[in-house]
Amino acid sequence: MSPRPEVPPRPVVSLLTDFGVRDPSGAICEGVILGICPQATVVHISHEVTKYAIRDGALLLWCALPFFPVAIHMAVVDPGVGTRRRPLAVVVGRGDVLIGPDNGLLLPAARRLDGIRAVHELTSDAHRLHQVSSSFHGRDIFAPAAAHLACGLPVGELGPEIDPATLVDLVIPDATPIPDGVETTVIYVDTFGNCKLAGLRHQLEAVVGPMRPGRAVRVQADGAAVRRLGWADTFGNVPVGEPILYVDSYDRLTLAVNQGNAAVELSLAQDQAIRIQVE
Amino acid sequence: MSPRPEVPPRPVVSLLTDFGVRDPSGAICEGVILGICPQATVVHISHEVTKYAIRDGALLLWCALPFFPVAIHMAVVDPGVGTRRRPLAVVVGRGDVLIGPDNGLLLPAARRLDGIRAVHELTSDAHRLHQVSSSFHGRDIFAPAAAHLACGLPVGELGPEIDPATLVDLVIPDATPIPDGVETTVIYVDTFGNCKLAGLRHQLEAVVGPMRPGRAVRVQADGAAVRRLGWADTFGNVPVGEPILYVDSYDRLTLAVNQGNAAVELSLAQDQAIRIQVE
Amino acid sequence: MSPRPEVPPRPVVSLLTDFGVRDPSGAICEGVILGICPQATVVHISHEVTKYAIRDGALLLWCALPFFPVAIHMAVVDPGVGTRRRPLAVVVGRGDVLIGPDNGLLLPAARRLDGIRAVHELTSDAHRLHQVSSSFHGRDIFAPAAAHLACGLPVGELGPEIDPATLVDLVIPDATPIPDGVETTVIYVDTFGNCKLAGLRHQLEAVVGPMRPGRAVRVQADGAAVRRLGWADTFGNVPVGEPILYVDSYDRLTLAVNQGNAAVELSLAQDQAIRIQVE
Repeated sequence: MSPRPEVPPRPVVSLLTDFGVRDPSGAICEGVILGICPQATVVHISHEVTKYAIRDGALLLWCALPFFPVAIHMAVVDPGVGTRRRPLAVVVGRGDVLIGPDNGLLLPAARRLDGIRAVHELTSDAHRLHQVSSSFHGRDIFAPAAAHLACGLPVGELGPEIDPATLVDLVIPDATPIPDGVETTVIYVDTFGNCKLAGLRHQLEAVVGPMRPGRAVRVQADGAAVRRLGWADTFGNVPVGEPILYVDSYDRLTLAVNQGNAAVELSLAQDQAIRIQVE
Repeated sequence: MSPRPEVPPRPVVSLLTDFGVRDPSGAICEGVILGICPQATVVHISHEVTKYAIRDGALLLWCALPFFPVAIHMAVVDPGVGTRRRPLAVVVGRGDVLIGPDNGLLLPAARRLDGIRAVHELTSDAHRLHQVSSSFHGRDIFAPAAAHLACGLPVGELGPEIDPATLVDLVIPDATPIPDGVETTVIYVDTFGNCKLAGLRHQLEAVVGPMRPGRAVRVQADGAAVRRLGWADTFGNVPVGEPILYVDSYDRLTLAVNQGNAAVELSLAQDQAIRIQVE
Repeated sequence: MSPRPEVPPRPVVSLLTDFGVRDPSGAICEGVILGICPQATVVHISHEVTKYAIRDGALLLWCALPFFPVAIHMAVVDPGVGTRRRPLAVVVGRGDVLIGPDNGLLLPAARRLDGIRAVHELTSDAHRLHQVSSSFHGRDIFAPAAAHLACGLPVGELGPEIDPATLVDLVIPDATPIPDGVETTVIYVDTFGNCKLAGLRHQLEAVVGPMRPGRAVRVQADGAAVRRLGWADTFGNVPVGEPILYVDSYDRLTLAVNQGNAAVELSLAQDQAIRIQVE
């Protein structure tokens, strides 16, 4: 079975890792890819995922991949590198192939790209670097596999098909209905300090009906005091320094401060429990 | 001798934003661009512009764009995203098109690329993503517009021409002549700690005549003590740790410390007033 | 003499600098390159090398370049910019050309790519930008040279051949045998906090024989207390939070903590002396 019957002239390979931008590791992966598949266009999604934070990496892939053309996507947040965790190629319904470790990193994005169609374990020695280290499988296993796929190799050549039901999955926080709102958690704090919540817009609206600009909301983090603020379409519609609840561009409930840093100004941090109640 | 017998059409699209390199937003814009115009070469000028600092972004574009080939340049430092501020395509005399919000960000660079030739407001629904969010116009409006232009769309298809005189402009600090020198401000502190002043070389030389290495200069920030230092062609020509006044590679008066950090060692910060007087 | 008789369709130019990712300088070099050689693929190895740290840059190039295809590699960590230090093109045995300042930055990588074959000084005015600043030779001299080579210019056109024996070299720390081990130093702390030592695996094994997982090691930094830990193949094979000694993916002795930061948790810093003794 070949998931890439027509190889485009400049196939895209995206990379997402926690390697850091100071160290050369992300670029080394690009070098390996260009050595195998010189016509590839490599896009660096991020190399600054918080170290070892598999769930952060999974969330960022979930955000990013739907906006990419059909491509090969390699992701490495991999504290189990060198252990028996399996290296994977996950073929999804849209036609992309996701490459990375079997630790849950790839699954939220795979489900959003029309679901898992097949999974292969990367076992083929012919499609790895000659020497495989114990600590840099991005360079030695994942980048070569991504490059060979980008240049048209059928995914079945990389290793045997395995049962998707055997993959390691993540526990992703969610939202629970409560009277007049939802109880949820801060799932990610972005570089603006915007606090993205696990709950999505439709989960809140299922309890309280349609949200409209100006509707008052009570927000309570853990045992802290209740804070009253307004629902808004975007931060620019309230005065500078004012906090709001809105949905980000992925339909996720988000706390922000216009031209400020909500995490700092509202004293919020990742994984903190949050109660949202609409008045 | 012709080293470029056949140049394939690979239009360049540059990106400059305050999105941060940890988050995937800059790469998502590249993904959108490659989906619409696969032959584009995307260059990331910076995604680490200080958050909301429109003037910083404008200055960095002003530095960078003259050294690029004629291209599509997309810039997003946009605290007004989702409000009524207009999304723009600015065609400049050199032939480039600058894409971004109507908040002044694009204008210093546009003037430096032989001036504004035409401005269009980006109103065409056919050249946006299907769903336009209220907080990520880089992805939903600006990147699609840039990609369509890169692939040959006439700029008039993106929306109606508007009067350049109606554009929002920035107040950019300048230099004022004083006896034996100029009064100016720190306009930007770069990652080396070099303190770039609003004043340009010719503004100082108009008062004091040609500057030559070793000429003594008195520098006074705000109410702080006067500091005496020398004019130099480059930091490497003075001992390690010694401060100098020189012109940076954009002809801007700049305070630096050889192999040190002038902002830290001279206690300077952006927007601080500075008096420069030559002895 | 032409070291690149056949120009590949998409020549690779890599860049490594200490310019920082906030400032546009690295991207400006890419813009200059694309203006001269539009078909080049530019790979950014790192722009976050510690400021002025020539040895760090040299080490990162040594790590990265063997994993790249034959290419033009431009590197700029250059506190002597604008002084009389020479700008170089170093042709290596593998066929790459390394471009950068004569301060030792290029030499460890050049030796690893099958050694120096020829060195040219970049003197040709025809292959620089029209105006050459005193502080940004990356933009004005090195990037144009790299771009012309990428598009097929014979290296001899860039300037006269010079004697490799006249190049400035670096002092790179090494390892010294002691009873039951080696005395060495921390040569680099990566973004995970892993502490890479100057000593390589074979230098330790020459004293103590083959290392195997679980073999006990005593580690002593400077005058600090002795710490006992185990040799491991990779961090994932010990409990979270446990320190190990292992070899990184470049065969370098390295101290790490599983899912932790060894530099912080073992109080280690670059250039610290370390005694490694095997029990």
